[in-house]
Amino acid sequence: MHIQIREGQALPDNAQRRGTIFAVGGREARYENSAVLSQFVSLCGGPKARLTVLSTASREPQRSVARYRVAFSALGVNDLSFFHQDQREDASHPALLAAVENADGVFFTGGSQLKLVSTIGGTPLDSILRERHRRGLHLGGSSAGASALSAVMIARGTGRSTARLSSVRLSPGLGFLSRVIVDQHFRERDRFGRLLAAILCNPSMRGFGLDEDTAFALNASDQVSVVGNGTLTIVDGTHLEATNIDEVPEDSPAAFAGMRMHVLSAGWTYGLLSGRIEKPLLPATTTRLPVDVLVTSGKRGR
Amino acid sequence: MHIQIREGQALPDNAQRRGTIFAVGGREARYENSAVLSQFVSLCGGPKARLTVLSTASREPQRSVARYRVAFSALGVNDLSFFHQDQREDASHPALLAAVENADGVFFTGGSQLKLVSTIGGTPLDSILRERHRRGLHLGGSSAGASALSAVMIARGTGRSTARLSSVRLSPGLGFLSRVIVDQHFRERDRFGRLLAAILCNPSMRGFGLDEDTAFALNASDQVSVVGNGTLTIVDGTHLEATNIDEVPEDSPAAFAGMRMHVLSAGWTYGLLSGRIEKPLLPATTTRLPVDVLVTSGKRGR
Repeated sequence: MHIQIREGQALPDNAQRRGTIFAVGGREARYENSAVLSQFVSLCGGPKARLTVLSTASREPQRSVARYRVAFSALGVNDLSFFHQDQREDASHPALLAAVENADGVFFTGGSQLKLVSTIGGTPLDSILRERHRRGLHLGGSSAGASALSAVMIARGTGRSTARLSSVRLSPGLGFLSRVIVDQHFRERDRFGRLLAAILCNPSMRGFGLDEDTAFALNASDQVSVVGNGTLTIVDGTHLEATNIDEVPEDSPAAFAGMRMHVLSAGWTYGLLSGRIEKPLLPATTTRLPVDVLVTSGKRGR
Repeated sequence: MHIQIREGQALPDNAQRRGTIFAVGGREARYENSAVLSQFVSLCGGPKARLTVLSTASREPQRSVARYRVAFSALGVNDLSFFHQDQREDASHPALLAAVENADGVFFTGGSQLKLVSTIGGTPLDSILRERHRRGLHLGGSSAGASALSAVMIARGTGRSTARLSSVRLSPGLGFLSRVIVDQHFRERDRFGRLLAAILCNPSMRGFGLDEDTAFALNASDQVSVVGNGTLTIVDGTHLEATNIDEVPEDSPAAFAGMRMHVLSAGWTYGLLSGRIEKPLLPATTTRLPVDVLVTSGKRGR
């Protein structure tokens, strides 16, 4: 399995100013008290935030758009725009590019991550997202929209707890997360095995498996924090001692030694570079996090 | 959760002479070419081995006994005896004690580990097994018979990949494995979560999850080796950094940081004390291991 990483997908040099990545495991509650979406709104600046929702991944955009319109409106956001792309040329529309240029946050809905990436990858929309994110635009995505944020993306796969090469199909993602592979609906669709298999293919990666109604925020200081009702499972291959995934038949369980595993719930934080995990001092009675945990403080570019 | 470890369950001082522990994940093939049972026969000395099968765990001992009679006979073993205990007084029968006294290996069938332990725990049979194992008697067990070998035993529980305190019920086992909790039918019944939960309760333990038709042998040098067609999943809590299993409701997923995980297949070895894992030099074209890997060489007591 060989996946080419496109140029420009590495973390930017001036990491202090880039926006936060906010990945959701799917099926987040979409009402006023939604912990997950309310955190996304908070990090984008609260009710005054200018948000753009891209339903590109979806094959039923009307339904998806209606839900997010209700959810973000209930959270007090008025400056909301929605765009959908079915063809690659849709990703050059001037109104779309202007909306992204002026947004505080862009949110990718669920659907098919392959549709999302094959439609917008390499388009003017892709370029402006990359450029604006580098200067502070926050990027959120749920389900397929979360998976697509990775540089190496899980395109498809089968559930089960066993790591088999045949259980996962990888492809190049949008590249906003260069060393992390995101999976979603994680516990609900029993996707531990396919995430393990993806990490065994390149143990320098970390796998982030998000349960439904659960999100992680990765800020510009590479600090990950968890919000929502489920857990974030982290599969860390960086200390792997051995595997036979390249030797056994694709359908056979792969053996391995030295995988590290963490399961974090709301309020726990993880240093992507340090590997350091912090458990909240108090048991989580709320899943709300202060905004300064989600967004690196200091001057943010616009 | 508090479990009292009985006296005498620690590893004996003179560990070089104790017998091998041979735990099977259940549903091992029971015909002449059975890799798993054939390894048990080999480690007990081959066709000349004197074997005693205890069907105590089973509620249908006739069926279970018939299968093992066919299997061990097909492997050339003639000196076979079978005993069953439904009442605690059955565990003092002189013929039973004499058979164990003279056996090279004793094998516990599947069934209910709670029936097995509650029937023979603290009986003369229990004492003589312990005493003879210390001097070289090999002990095998499949399914419930494997679980019961632990000092802290998984008595019952529910499948799923999520660690929840409510998913596992622990009780004191026979105590031949003091720092290891064994689980079986592991992949087939999706028991990752209950083994994780057991280890979170006391991270000094290691969880060994055996797939069906798969076994591990633990020799007197504390070297573990894997045989059979599936894998042994090792969940190692000894480097755990944090968990909230004591804080969250019993039915909620427990969070944790720093779990280590290994999945080993036939031919892989694991040092129980060193944590060192060795991958076989050649991809396993056979699941047979040399006897000197299974049994520590040197003078063995009788």
